Amino acid sequence: MPGLQVCYTPLQYPLFRNEDDIVVVIDILRATSAMVTAVAHGAAGVIPVARVEEAMAFSGKDYVLAAERDGRIVEGFDYGNSPYSFMGDEIKGKTLVLSTTNGTQAIEAAKSSHALIVAAFINLHAVCTWLERQGRGVLLLCAGWKNKFNLEDSIFAGAVADYLLGRGFSTDCDSVRASVHLWNFSKHDLNAFLEDSSHRNRLGRLELKRDIAYCLQTDITDAIPILKNDVLVKL
Amino acid sequence: MPGLQVCYTPLQYPLFRNEDDIVVVIDILRATSAMVTAVAHGAAGVIPVARVEEAMAFSGKDYVLAAERDGRIVEGFDYGNSPYSFMGDEIKGKTLVLSTTNGTQAIEAAKSSHALIVAAFINLHAVCTWLERQGRGVLLLCAGWKNKFNLEDSIFAGAVADYLLGRGFSTDCDSVRASVHLWNFSKHDLNAFLEDSSHRNRLGRLELKRDIAYCLQTDITDAIPILKNDVLVKL
Repeated sequence: MPGLQVCYTPLQYPLFRNEDDIVVVIDILRATSAMVTAVAHGAAGVIPVARVEEAMAFSGKDYVLAAERDGRIVEGFDYGNSPYSFMGDEIKGKTLVLSTTNGTQAIEAAKSSHALIVAAFINLHAVCTWLERQGRGVLLLCAGWKNKFNLEDSIFAGAVADYLLGRGFSTDCDSVRASVHLWNFSKHDLNAFLEDSSHRNRLGRLELKRDIAYCLQTDITDAIPILKNDVLVKL
Repeated sequence: MPGLQVCYTPLQYPLFRNEDDIVVVIDILRATSAMVTAVAHGAAGVIPVARVEEAMAFSGKDYVLAAERDGRIVEGFDYGNSPYSFMGDEIKGKTLVLSTTNGTQAIEAAKSSHALIVAAFINLHAVCTWLERQGRGVLLLCAGWKNKFNLEDSIFAGAVADYLLGRGFSTDCDSVRASVHLWNFSKHDLNAFLEDSSHRNRLGRLELKRDIAYCLQTDITDAIPILKNDVLVKL
């Protein structure tokens, strides 16, 4: 039986590292939702970079540059991490360079694993069935918020875990169990459940309610970004 | 309104550190349950030490020495962290020197906070009402398991949080919210809910079922250990 674990923050990733695992990076609000969106809308690839200066180094070339910190677009960039920025002609065939507060740090930490994919509610079912077919150990890596636990990433991990545990994956990991409970408790009205979450409040204050509603939709695309030579491309 | 946070592992403690807070250290299976038991049964104090060698340095003097690693008594010590070791005449009036896998590491990390107390299900209500009376910010610090999330500590944090949030404490912390959900989901049959937790399985294999049943009892004592000059004494 392949094993399954959930890591709640990039800080804890070294305790879970197993280079034979598939790592699934989760940053629902909004980095991984944005990356899935870009790839689903025809981006050639997404280059995740941990530091803003690294993103800046791509300027002047044929890239779309985006950087977000603390929920806001970084000065000097055209885009932050709103998925709505990555749906139109400006992204088609282009490579997006993206740096975000949490999600790109998680990718950086785990990039030497057997495979690294990016997941969000918008591609939940596609991710679940692909992981099932691989039959290999899975680590669900939540981006969290500045290395603290967050609800929306943990609940999403619970959704994937619930699926995989029902299909023969095994676990000895309490964070898997807690996440499955939180998912089962919240899945019938995710929006209401997350009404009071800290990150949602943070983004709500930044008037990003439309983004949140988008990111909490389930299964609107089958696109899965997978990391190949440091670029996320469509699987 | 005083603030309330939950930190799931000692590794993350630096992200939560606020020297004005009261820190509540939680290691249900079994370090903090054992410390509360010792103080409740007349121990003069408990000296928590992070490393086994530090505990060994107290030998030959009038101390009761105990050390546990990975659920077992460390070689050369008479006691591990079973609460049943700290209920009799051998502890009365004595000072216990205790080193454990997780709990004493958490105490070491947070010992410079405004106040540090030790909590477990066996003194839950006493801890809740004392914290309420202080009217000061509270950080619930779970010992976890080797810097990973564990269920029993998180659920206990939810029990305390549920009480304090109902009495005017405020939070902007998703781990508080998750813990309160887990507590409300599990409180009617904690034993059954934890049946499958990783640490319980670990201890179950070590034939410590009697200890687990003891540690999951609620409110059998009003004793609260508080750290004074590096010694936990009865409040």
